[in-house]
Amino acid sequence: MTEFRTRRERLWESLTQVDANHRPHAYLVSGLANIRYLTGFTGSNALLLVHAGGALLLTDPRYTTQSAQETDCSRSIVRAKSLFQAAPGKIKPRGWKRIGFDPSHVACASLEVLRDALPGVRFVPLESQVERLRMVKSASEIEAIRRAVRINSEAFDRAMEHLRPGISENCFAAEIDYQMRLLGAERQAFETIVASGPRSALVHARPSGDPILANELLLIDMGAHCGGYASDMTRMAFPGQPDRKTKQHHAFVLEAQLAALDAVKPGASSVAVDRAARQVLKRHGVGDAFVHSTGHGLGLEVHEPPRVAKKYRTRLEAGMVITVEPGIYLPDFGGIRIEDTVVVTPHGCEVLTPTPKDLHVV
Amino acid sequence: MTEFRTRRERLWESLTQVDANHRPHAYLVSGLANIRYLTGFTGSNALLLVHAGGALLLTDPRYTTQSAQETDCSRSIVRAKSLFQAAPGKIKPRGWKRIGFDPSHVACASLEVLRDALPGVRFVPLESQVERLRMVKSASEIEAIRRAVRINSEAFDRAMEHLRPGISENCFAAEIDYQMRLLGAERQAFETIVASGPRSALVHARPSGDPILANELLLIDMGAHCGGYASDMTRMAFPGQPDRKTKQHHAFVLEAQLAALDAVKPGASSVAVDRAARQVLKRHGVGDAFVHSTGHGLGLEVHEPPRVAKKYRTRLEAGMVITVEPGIYLPDFGGIRIEDTVVVTPHGCEVLTPTPKDLHVV
Repeated sequence: MTEFRTRRERLWESLTQVDANHRPHAYLVSGLANIRYLTGFTGSNALLLVHAGGALLLTDPRYTTQSAQETDCSRSIVRAKSLFQAAPGKIKPRGWKRIGFDPSHVACASLEVLRDALPGVRFVPLESQVERLRMVKSASEIEAIRRAVRINSEAFDRAMEHLRPGISENCFAAEIDYQMRLLGAERQAFETIVASGPRSALVHARPSGDPILANELLLIDMGAHCGGYASDMTRMAFPGQPDRKTKQHHAFVLEAQLAALDAVKPGASSVAVDRAARQVLKRHGVGDAFVHSTGHGLGLEVHEPPRVAKKYRTRLEAGMVITVEPGIYLPDFGGIRIEDTVVVTPHGCEVLTPTPKDLHVV
Repeated sequence: MTEFRTRRERLWESLTQVDANHRPHAYLVSGLANIRYLTGFTGSNALLLVHAGGALLLTDPRYTTQSAQETDCSRSIVRAKSLFQAAPGKIKPRGWKRIGFDPSHVACASLEVLRDALPGVRFVPLESQVERLRMVKSASEIEAIRRAVRINSEAFDRAMEHLRPGISENCFAAEIDYQMRLLGAERQAFETIVASGPRSALVHARPSGDPILANELLLIDMGAHCGGYASDMTRMAFPGQPDRKTKQHHAFVLEAQLAALDAVKPGASSVAVDRAARQVLKRHGVGDAFVHSTGHGLGLEVHEPPRVAKKYRTRLEAGMVITVEPGIYLPDFGGIRIEDTVVVTPHGCEVLTPTPKDLHVV
């Protein structure tokens, strides 16, 4: 519980740095991952008002008991149509005249509700205040991610024992998810991707009812959510005998992934990590086939800041957890991606994912 | 494909009814379920501009191949940081001066991006334009929901064969999800709830690592997502010999659920359906323990309009699909909820869920 209080205090402290004209009397937190980070509350409907004197969590009667068990801050159980309709009743009596909010997490319609009910209050857009804190993970958060990664890799190994040509992408994905859950994951971190043959060239393919065929590429992208924290891993398998082109292209991607990992260290720019992967693939003539970014931060959400991409410059710090996942996608051939979950350490990085990165020939 | 085009035409037709002052030259659709409804596109990143001459789908390079396979409308693959940054480049050359959008599906920050790039354009909030069309389902949509419901119930039966005291809530939930997937579901429609004993009083409990105990209530709330469409069902089980109070309270909830079902017919108000359930529970002295609404619409999303609740008045129409799910939650005793997926028919309703509603004593 102390950890949540400390986080709220750090958020408040950072808000007191805002220039006097925009400095809020309270900050409205509406993203559920941000609310969980600041309070421990895991329900699906909540708003949080962080202020100098503490914090007030708003939720609905479905969560009366649960919110009392999970959180240490003040709570208000409201029966309004929406929590945004209830919030003004909490803001007005306190006389707050400037409310900070994250414009990326508040819908236009919700802001209208607040403005209509509180004509004397100014709503100040202050973006990513909580996400910025969340970028650098504490030891307990890294431990949670490490556990999610372990379950992920163990489930991969167990599921691979069931892989044989003929099983449908759907059934193999179901097996992966089932194994993650039996090992203690609350859920998969995203819809597991199992894509065989030409379908592997669809970057975010959903598993289909089609069978996994022998002598075709098989792309597996999976993540576990554990104690609220995510993992993310992509591996390539090949049921049968891989041909020369497959082995060669797999080697290109692996080389790019290792080059990117080499670039991960405190002080390095996220753009440099992205560039390292991109340069290798370009040199091998497949740069255009790398159609996404090299990675993303990961924690309470499977995608969170920092992004590891061409256009997003973040200086990496020890404690940041990111994925490194270059890939190439050739419509008539297939897709190859290799992805690890990685923590930035004081002197470089630690690849958390223990699963071997070679082409898993079965 | 024809069905998607017809839906876009119906949307455009409804927008031409907007008064001349607000009538948009194009309507920006940003919710992914709405985009899927109008185009068939199932990717995770898209914007859609519907206009008099057709529709333009914006997505990113990850979905080049997939969007071509799934949709029949014009497409633009953009490499901008976000699709909202790319949209102005599509709007400006066409000379549109009024763009409609749904303020519930657009974050304040995204609207700012559009406004900054298009100072001469007026953005007109027009809420729930697509959701309104989605409320009444077509025959093919009802067929898809029927399939999701069937898989749901079959998976329940198969999972129940594994239920024995001592198995953890987590593992039993994993079994349910695994069975749904093996039967053809793409995924669970929401995090399956398996809550034993006093935990069943937490309305939206996540399954825990705790064992399911003999002689305690067991609440199971599950849904399958199939071909994009959802099902939703809650049943109560009891490993052991239920006592008198348990049987009595289960009978109260069942009576309330049947009363609500009786009220479902075309022309009836959704409020009347909610009231029917509420009155029964009040008469039995447990009205205060019914802390949520009676139901919700269901289709491409597991929660969509209409709501079946105290404060939301919708006239039911044939083709609407809703859940009917009264429940009571007593902290020292447990929770009981019974939920079916139901389609409004020309003369009443059809309960799609085939699973028996009695207390499943095992």
